[in-house]
Amino acid sequence: MAPEAASPAQLKVRRVQLDTGRENVIVISRRSEALRAEIYRGFSRVEIRRGAKVLLATLLITDDGLVGPDEIALAEPAFRRFAEPEGSLVTVTPAPPPESLGAVRAKIHGQALRDDEIDAIIADITSYRYSDMEIAAFLVGSASFMTSGELIALTRAMAQAGTQLKWPGLMVVDKHCIGGIPGNRTSMIVVPIVAAHGLTIPKTSSRAITSPAGTADTMEVLARVNVGVDEMKSIVAACNGCLIWGGHVNLSPADDILISVERPLCLDTREQMVASIISKKLAAGSTHLLIDLPVGPTAKLANDNEAMRLRKLFEFVGDRFGLSVEVITTDGRQPIGNGIGPVLEAEDVMAVLSNDPLAPVDLREKSLRLAAHLLEYDPALRGGAGYARARDLLESGAALRQMHRIMDAQGPSDCNSDLGDLTFDVKAASDGIVSAIDCLRLNRLARTAGAPLDKGAGIRLFKKIGDHVEQGEPLYRVHTFDRSEYSLAEAGANAESGYAIVPARRAKAAP
Amino acid sequence: MAPEAASPAQLKVRRVQLDTGRENVIVISRRSEALRAEIYRGFSRVEIRRGAKVLLATLLITDDGLVGPDEIALAEPAFRRFAEPEGSLVTVTPAPPPESLGAVRAKIHGQALRDDEIDAIIADITSYRYSDMEIAAFLVGSASFMTSGELIALTRAMAQAGTQLKWPGLMVVDKHCIGGIPGNRTSMIVVPIVAAHGLTIPKTSSRAITSPAGTADTMEVLARVNVGVDEMKSIVAACNGCLIWGGHVNLSPADDILISVERPLCLDTREQMVASIISKKLAAGSTHLLIDLPVGPTAKLANDNEAMRLRKLFEFVGDRFGLSVEVITTDGRQPIGNGIGPVLEAEDVMAVLSNDPLAPVDLREKSLRLAAHLLEYDPALRGGAGYARARDLLESGAALRQMHRIMDAQGPSDCNSDLGDLTFDVKAASDGIVSAIDCLRLNRLARTAGAPLDKGAGIRLFKKIGDHVEQGEPLYRVHTFDRSEYSLAEAGANAESGYAIVPARRAKAAP
Repeated sequence: MAPEAASPAQLKVRRVQLDTGRENVIVISRRSEALRAEIYRGFSRVEIRRGAKVLLATLLITDDGLVGPDEIALAEPAFRRFAEPEGSLVTVTPAPPPESLGAVRAKIHGQALRDDEIDAIIADITSYRYSDMEIAAFLVGSASFMTSGELIALTRAMAQAGTQLKWPGLMVVDKHCIGGIPGNRTSMIVVPIVAAHGLTIPKTSSRAITSPAGTADTMEVLARVNVGVDEMKSIVAACNGCLIWGGHVNLSPADDILISVERPLCLDTREQMVASIISKKLAAGSTHLLIDLPVGPTAKLANDNEAMRLRKLFEFVGDRFGLSVEVITTDGRQPIGNGIGPVLEAEDVMAVLSNDPLAPVDLREKSLRLAAHLLEYDPALRGGAGYARARDLLESGAALRQMHRIMDAQGPSDCNSDLGDLTFDVKAASDGIVSAIDCLRLNRLARTAGAPLDKGAGIRLFKKIGDHVEQGEPLYRVHTFDRSEYSLAEAGANAESGYAIVPARRAKAAP
Repeated sequence: MAPEAASPAQLKVRRVQLDTGRENVIVISRRSEALRAEIYRGFSRVEIRRGAKVLLATLLITDDGLVGPDEIALAEPAFRRFAEPEGSLVTVTPAPPPESLGAVRAKIHGQALRDDEIDAIIADITSYRYSDMEIAAFLVGSASFMTSGELIALTRAMAQAGTQLKWPGLMVVDKHCIGGIPGNRTSMIVVPIVAAHGLTIPKTSSRAITSPAGTADTMEVLARVNVGVDEMKSIVAACNGCLIWGGHVNLSPADDILISVERPLCLDTREQMVASIISKKLAAGSTHLLIDLPVGPTAKLANDNEAMRLRKLFEFVGDRFGLSVEVITTDGRQPIGNGIGPVLEAEDVMAVLSNDPLAPVDLREKSLRLAAHLLEYDPALRGGAGYARARDLLESGAALRQMHRIMDAQGPSDCNSDLGDLTFDVKAASDGIVSAIDCLRLNRLARTAGAPLDKGAGIRLFKKIGDHVEQGEPLYRVHTFDRSEYSLAEAGANAESGYAIVPARRAKAAP
């Protein structure tokens, strides 16, 4: 017996305020009239269609009254990305596994991928066709071995998968740090200096994923950073630069998706890092890029050999795309500046820009050095005149004025910038000299204290490497807002302060 | 300022009827009084505790009224596994990433793992401490290379992670097929024959994951298969054998978790397959194991070379654990029997056991061959007497009586065993001889038709390889219950029937 010709039944869209992170998730009733839920259990990925619009999502099934049998509930990220009003009629069908997974399997079994295979993988990832475990399979398969041809193809595919900015003028400069060092907010000093000189520096930054603050989180203490492409262009036209969050500009969106899986897996391979950074900068329209590689025992790079290998890879890939890449290594043995966490870091930045005599010297000097490198892209300053020019722009107040122009152009932030008022001090257990500070541990501690979601949570350092301390003297102060964070942070700091202190004589004996 | 000493606040357990598959998922309110949801966003995995009981789960955050601020909602699998009543008070804390992930990263970077590292990975996976992407990372990292030492350690760790059955008597026989061939329900004939002879054969089977039926799904048409350990033991004591679902017995639970990630990724490596099967059989207390490796162009093994490599690996691992493993290759060029899908397969099985003259000959002969191998573990039958004994037990009706004893002992099934009444026939496009049948495509088609969730959905084959057909003659009939499945299946079968037909002369020319 044959039924009448069937067309897929329609379901009404409902929004459900369920925060599912990056993933698109939908919920249907097991009693759904349109979908045979039991059948669909075999397919965890479904396609939701309205006209030509398609969204890929993970399916959950409910027996509760959460969703009516003629409804489909879209969790927040899915609802936002699908961008159709509640009550819209949609059809739902099982999503076939993405075809490019065949190439991922070939990669896992040791094959090098062709450019078109890599393009297909990145296109599917960008359309949310990959589940987290499929992304993990691609990353792990690539982590053990990647040819230079694959790296170039991956970088190109990622750069071309989202917005690609174009700028008037021949030179667009940018800087990037590979991260890992608490408090290292040089961009917020370098951008106003370089922009004050007249070079174009349209800086997009990330928010923290596993650290207590990204540049976008810290800048948000001073100004709005959720800026789209058109507004970004007019800010840069007016101020030569900006300091905004990259998330609204959609540069190399595949990179954001890959990072969201790399980070929890701690899969930081050199190739992924280079593809990630260069693809973002190509999409941003940069022509000249300065890369900061901090080196230190608890930094991402432990020694100069590692830094050199990474430098070569950055230069190799940059060259292939006509991007002028300069790579410098910097001191990554300890945090830069005194503050860790958005509000405390913003205080450091403004102290440097204001020529405050108490401003942290290391943050000032490092920023001047980076700015000097960028300024020397200007033919007029080539050959060593960059540093003096950078210092002049800072000391004259020109950089501060430029920062205020940028802040005004981006508009006021609506976030709370109070400092956390539940505090405790961590004190030296003995007399001596600070010999090491663990960047990983202080990052984790500041995060436990509530940063970056509480802008005013974090750590203020009183001592740095080489400082003399007496037993009981405070090494740093932890700021929190909340009882439970306070307790967790205090327990963490008591277990291990992150500071190593050696007797003064031993420290003197070492050169 | 310091707060009073904080202890983690308590939340009331609520059950939410949300089917999240294998994963433990909990939902809390963004306005939760106890958890600072914003902080916890950084941690997708949390630990829920009540007294000494701990459950690891993935955290979702809601702004809706789904959950009160003093509540925590556990989705179905989490609620079932935590097994505490609604209203119980629990604490929730971020789950640190499992320590054994360090070993996974080492594996990805090419290191061979020690036994204790593999033990720790399997222990964490069994406790649901790994997310899907972390499991994928482990599997992919192992897929490219695994030493024989790692394979042994993995097999042992998996076998020891769940229930370990012990049986009275020295010999416990078992059989296992690596799968991939539709309709291949030999276990349901082999077990009653072998048990009727008096050997102990406590068979646990899986349900389908990506196929249209597992042995447990098909047996469930005839009897209850959701049987626990104690009941299993009394059934085997009474009948020498059983045919139950392994899911309630918790043998090698890590295997089920790994498979749930391997399958969607199509990561079927030989090492994973061997560890999976041998660990389950070790945990089941088997002493003698017969493994069926079907070989054919659309089977899991394409040729005898592949089968030989897999055979050697099975024998190597079996030897290390004192498990007597015998591996045979069988014809995997086409489905076995005529039915595909639980009800249709159960009909085939009962036709063979009843000596019905219309029973499928291939299913009967293959089952007799497998039973013969197992029977020859009996010293009295060694050296070739197994086949005659198996045939006698079948033809005399002893096997059928034993099957009824086992069915009675397991009890009646409560599932619907009607055959799907929405049907269509797929017909030969030309005159000729059937030269090939695509197992993968028929599996997919039967699944699209609704199997195994609709027991009576599936395919009945009218023609097998070598049969003459005339244009328009039915090749097979598809049974469904539901309009939408009917349409999907019909479209699939029209696109590609899965049958190759060659002109009779060409077929004759080939030897």
